Amino acid sequence: MKPMRPSDPGPERNRFGQDLADPFPAQDSWCRDGSGRRFTYDQALELIRGFHGHPAPGLVIGVKMVSLALARLPRDVIFDAICETRSCLPDAVQLLTPCTIGNGWLQIVDLGRFALALYDKTEGSGVRVFIDPAKLQDWPEFYGWLYKRKPKQEQDAGRLQAEIRAAGEQVLAVRTVRVQPRFLGKHSKGRIATCPACGEPYPLSAGGICKGCQGEAPYVASDGGAADRSR
Amino acid sequence: MKPMRPSDPGPERNRFGQDLADPFPAQDSWCRDGSGRRFTYDQALELIRGFHGHPAPGLVIGVKMVSLALARLPRDVIFDAICETRSCLPDAVQLLTPCTIGNGWLQIVDLGRFALALYDKTEGSGVRVFIDPAKLQDWPEFYGWLYKRKPKQEQDAGRLQAEIRAAGEQVLAVRTVRVQPRFLGKHSKGRIATCPACGEPYPLSAGGICKGCQGEAPYVASDGGAADRSR
Repeated sequence: MKPMRPSDPGPERNRFGQDLADPFPAQDSWCRDGSGRRFTYDQALELIRGFHGHPAPGLVIGVKMVSLALARLPRDVIFDAICETRSCLPDAVQLLTPCTIGNGWLQIVDLGRFALALYDKTEGSGVRVFIDPAKLQDWPEFYGWLYKRKPKQEQDAGRLQAEIRAAGEQVLAVRTVRVQPRFLGKHSKGRIATCPACGEPYPLSAGGICKGCQGEAPYVASDGGAADRSR
Repeated sequence: MKPMRPSDPGPERNRFGQDLADPFPAQDSWCRDGSGRRFTYDQALELIRGFHGHPAPGLVIGVKMVSLALARLPRDVIFDAICETRSCLPDAVQLLTPCTIGNGWLQIVDLGRFALALYDKTEGSGVRVFIDPAKLQDWPEFYGWLYKRKPKQEQDAGRLQAEIRAAGEQVLAVRTVRVQPRFLGKHSKGRIATCPACGEPYPLSAGGICKGCQGEAPYVASDGGAADRSR
């Protein structure tokens, strides 16, 4: 059974325990987390830098997308998340919601679309948020970024950030969705056995040896696995 | 070009900006992050709860595995990470290193093996850490957890945590590896176009319409995409 989601970290700290500034008017907020805590644009950049390493444009608009999805979900629904891209957006979900790639509440279905969905984890109804390209006509640098029109080194980073900040929610769109049943609930790995080749535990459903020993390991060379105890 | 990794958050805060207790002897530490900051067992549990939601056994041993990998990497190497499972372990990497799923410095190659590798991002040499099942003979609950011998509700959670804590690094193994070239460097998505079916940007390499519109979208139903502006 899925454990309880983490509780609200309280009014003075976000989920990473960071001290936050005094409350500020809602109109000054850039994004919010799952507990309703709001962040100014500058606080959002700080949050992004702390986790993602740099204030990537996809994450600056990404946290806005997650916030919009959170605002449109019914209150108190226990939700899971899907990202339709592996670029940036998964980190926006991980920053603002309890859903992470390691706890399984966030799944990546890599369609190459810059979109995400938050949905009721038991019955699949939810909301999908994406950037509507037709709404980007006033924001050429933002459009150019979304369509990868320039190599990163030719982008005007300052202008791009300014356009994202000015455009904000205006360029986003929300649709209701229902997630396929196969994305709901936990999936058992089935029986675990020891791989006779590497000596490590693996799901028996992979076959007589583990997928790594079937040639899917990402390594050119390795000095051995558990089965090789000479080292 | 990959941006700079985040700088050391300073002696008093971890990368999430959390205040940390006074320094303590190295032998009391359960894990460490990429900047060398150490965490006691209790601090590690707090860190895990804040991100992952609950102190999952896979994350308690996972942060120990990441710490061991970090300790074995040459100093100052700029590394990326691979997890060989999607369960728990990716969050240990995301908690203790600059590598996240959204910034692309962490990749999941789901072989169903509870193992991870940290490696030099430019030339691929690194270390792989895994749990060696042969070393688990003194830890029956830990062994039972790794081999999924009991449904979660029948596990003795207290005993499992105690065994993981007592076993610690003793049950881990480290091997040097070299990661395949195809996992190194950035991969371009190629040209981005607007999908004539949904009206959203997608990588043209997917074909004439996006993968979502080719039937790979995770939704049973949706009230439309960008192409449907009637709503």
